[in-house]
Amino acid sequence: MLTIDINCDMGESTALWDYRIEKDIALLRYLSSVNLACGFHAGDAHTMHTLVEAALTAGLAIGAHPGFADRENFGRSNIVLPPEKIYDIIIYQLGALDAFLKIHGARLRHVKPHGALYNMAAKDRVMADAICRAVKDYDDRLLLVGLSGSKLISAAQAIELQSRSEVFADRSYAPDGSLTPRSSPGALIASEEASLQQVLQMIQQGTVTATNGQQVPIIAETVCLHGDGEHALPFAQRIYNTLKQQGIETRPD
Amino acid sequence: MLTIDINCDMGESTALWDYRIEKDIALLRYLSSVNLACGFHAGDAHTMHTLVEAALTAGLAIGAHPGFADRENFGRSNIVLPPEKIYDIIIYQLGALDAFLKIHGARLRHVKPHGALYNMAAKDRVMADAICRAVKDYDDRLLLVGLSGSKLISAAQAIELQSRSEVFADRSYAPDGSLTPRSSPGALIASEEASLQQVLQMIQQGTVTATNGQQVPIIAETVCLHGDGEHALPFAQRIYNTLKQQGIETRPD
Amino acid sequence: MLTIDINCDMGESTALWDYRIEKDIALLRYLSSVNLACGFHAGDAHTMHTLVEAALTAGLAIGAHPGFADRENFGRSNIVLPPEKIYDIIIYQLGALDAFLKIHGARLRHVKPHGALYNMAAKDRVMADAICRAVKDYDDRLLLVGLSGSKLISAAQAIELQSRSEVFADRSYAPDGSLTPRSSPGALIASEEASLQQVLQMIQQGTVTATNGQQVPIIAETVCLHGDGEHALPFAQRIYNTLKQQGIETRPD
Amino acid sequence: MLTIDINCDMGESTALWDYRIEKDIALLRYLSSVNLACGFHAGDAHTMHTLVEAALTAGLAIGAHPGFADRENFGRSNIVLPPEKIYDIIIYQLGALDAFLKIHGARLRHVKPHGALYNMAAKDRVMADAICRAVKDYDDRLLLVGLSGSKLISAAQAIELQSRSEVFADRSYAPDGSLTPRSSPGALIASEEASLQQVLQMIQQGTVTATNGQQVPIIAETVCLHGDGEHALPFAQRIYNTLKQQGIETRPD
Repeated sequence: MLTIDINCDMGESTALWDYRIEKDIALLRYLSSVNLACGFHAGDAHTMHTLVEAALTAGLAIGAHPGFADRENFGRSNIVLPPEKIYDIIIYQLGALDAFLKIHGARLRHVKPHGALYNMAAKDRVMADAICRAVKDYDDRLLLVGLSGSKLISAAQAIELQSRSEVFADRSYAPDGSLTPRSSPGALIASEEASLQQVLQMIQQGTVTATNGQQVPIIAETVCLHGDGEHALPFAQRIYNTLKQQGIETRPD
Repeated sequence: MLTIDINCDMGESTALWDYRIEKDIALLRYLSSVNLACGFHAGDAHTMHTLVEAALTAGLAIGAHPGFADRENFGRSNIVLPPEKIYDIIIYQLGALDAFLKIHGARLRHVKPHGALYNMAAKDRVMADAICRAVKDYDDRLLLVGLSGSKLISAAQAIELQSRSEVFADRSYAPDGSLTPRSSPGALIASEEASLQQVLQMIQQGTVTATNGQQVPIIAETVCLHGDGEHALPFAQRIYNTLKQQGIETRPD
Repeated sequence: MLTIDINCDMGESTALWDYRIEKDIALLRYLSSVNLACGFHAGDAHTMHTLVEAALTAGLAIGAHPGFADRENFGRSNIVLPPEKIYDIIIYQLGALDAFLKIHGARLRHVKPHGALYNMAAKDRVMADAICRAVKDYDDRLLLVGLSGSKLISAAQAIELQSRSEVFADRSYAPDGSLTPRSSPGALIASEEASLQQVLQMIQQGTVTATNGQQVPIIAETVCLHGDGEHALPFAQRIYNTLKQQGIETRPD
Repeated sequence: MLTIDINCDMGESTALWDYRIEKDIALLRYLSSVNLACGFHAGDAHTMHTLVEAALTAGLAIGAHPGFADRENFGRSNIVLPPEKIYDIIIYQLGALDAFLKIHGARLRHVKPHGALYNMAAKDRVMADAICRAVKDYDDRLLLVGLSGSKLISAAQAIELQSRSEVFADRSYAPDGSLTPRSSPGALIASEEASLQQVLQMIQQGTVTATNGQQVPIIAETVCLHGDGEHALPFAQRIYNTLKQQGIETRPD
């Protein structure tokens, strides 16, 4: 039986958007894991606590979603830091989030870097090494979630840190298996139907249809849904139901 | 002919919520003035620039919406600062926002404090004095927008700083004319119809029906709409159309 | 044999003040415990890591020094937060700092709130309870360091959280055993000689001479030295040597 | 008669270091201009106000010292932003600081980017253009202070924005006239005597002795002193006296 993990980045709203947290919470039932912002690119202590409790109640796997300390640009600006500072901001954020699990007798299951940290490390082995080393030093039972085929995955493998290869429902892929940059036309897959087909193909056939029409092999261990669009909730529900109908089990593994 | 100003706090989203700025911009056509966050409780330089340009294009009056440097709690925590530091954070934020108007040959028309700064100063004359003095020292042509009947208004009057008395469409009022605290049940008026009637009564009769049923006199020079609810846009449109039908002109002055 | 703990707040400099960290490190040999800023009122991940390593090498007890998220005022402004948010910012900061100990196989020994958090909780039992509960929930082996005679100490005792009563070398005391407020003349004891005598009297006789000349009983389990003055280093050395000469052992417990 | 401007970056301390502001203020008498941090990489509203008043009283020219919003690394990390966001953070910071001059009937004279913003723009014409355009759009009477021989200077010249070429007393130079990177040995000139000779040679002969011993031509219109070292004050005094003895007038223009 095929299984897949469905993850979503959460806790990225601010105190204003009270109703956003409700949206985050409403999404939980269609997911198997969540990645919680840790207060650097977004998030705050109270939101983290609220979502940790909601995710524990919902029985989901909880991971950290550390980013650059760059609220102004939502952690999406490339910031050049020496590897030892990359290491330190990972350690700090893991500890801060894990504390909210610890008080409930739980612990983090995985770590998925955010935004520029995720994208830079996908191509930069020195950064990827610093991140993976921090994750392993903090708790060697943790899983590293990174872009499928990226240096984050190979850096994890090099130090025998478990990893999960991530794919995206609503992003298109280049022939080399990398994501089409957000700045390019066609980077985002607007049609829900097309997103759904891409997800199924990635899980069932282990391939993705690149922007030039070519079938490209891809490892899909966890699928990222975005929680911030207008139609995030109905789309999550649709993916969830479709996977069920196809006999694909949703679980964090 | 009756006139009223319709204002809305804006630019309080973060870089993530790109679609929020579009929501802010979509609201502009139903408003006569906007209050832009200045980077302390929310907002950032790029959002400020984008919204200044959009509001200028829409022909709206632009005001500053300064707050405490408290993103974690969206500027809603009471922070105790000496009056000279209150003065300084107002000056800083006015200058920062005004710079984006200056490069377009425009200037700020008004200042409306945000959140805890607004609420604390409504009851604390020392804070109100510090805010009003900063506004006047920065540019004595500015208007101060404050809670109707509050110490912000009397502090402005005391130094001959022009002011505008603000009322709220979706907040209920106590018999003494103050807002029912957010923490009390019934603080928010959930029904659009009731909100609409409250706005019309405040403008046309100069009264508000307090939570105990009593008719209380109130000065309504500008009405605040909230831009962050799910139904913000249709409600703004409905208020706008109703005022038009009632022959009440919407304008900043 | 008399013993005393000598503590100092550290890691409160910023990246600019590289030489400050050296000053912090130079002080370590005259202390028995350190309280490290956790990134809210001051401090950052890299500084925290550097000082954790230096303190472990020096064999000192390491504690967290959590504060309000208020860099602008160095955590010295009174911020009014509901107890559950106080709880959450403590949990977050403990986890963040403890992570740097965890990767070295060590753990936090104590928690000493900073600035306004320390002073408000000294007089406000609801805040004190929130802090103590967070500390105990995070790790019930932790010690709470609070102002001698304050509500922080009684709140800790009420839930059987171990505590240490703190006194200050360079602050004067009111007849009721409380600190003379910083805003009052004579709050700071400028003379090193007088500071030294006060410390000895507190340790050896369990009393302090209040500002009105009265001898007041005081519990002194840990003495706070300030690390940021021009003469911090020679004064620490002088205290250290004097205690030694008097046969008082300096140790964290 | 030869003249030179002596500038110093200031207001980069935090609320803790009260005595640092006193150090900044003590330096003023040996300078002709100051560059004040604007709250992004360092500084806060109250410090800005205090130093604006002190510099106006001392009769010094006041400039803005804008940086990246990166307190964690003191504005020294390279952050990749699109030119329109660079433009916006300059506009924001100029307005914020200028507001404190405006309330005293004064205005900014110059702008000197800080840290990574200064260094990146020295080599990146797109960034340099964005900065210069922002400065000119804000107030076309402003001067741009940039590294001598850098793209900041040529970008300013290209749009007829006045500029001043900056040299450093305590930094060594490569044969191509660029600064030796801070990460290289010998980047900082430790000897005061050597610093002093370098300053005199740059002013009197228009050359600098590069690290390979070669005499390299350099334009020196303003000399940067660092205010944060242990010996900042006596060194500033020594430079000041030496220039006087050599008949070189110290003034901002």
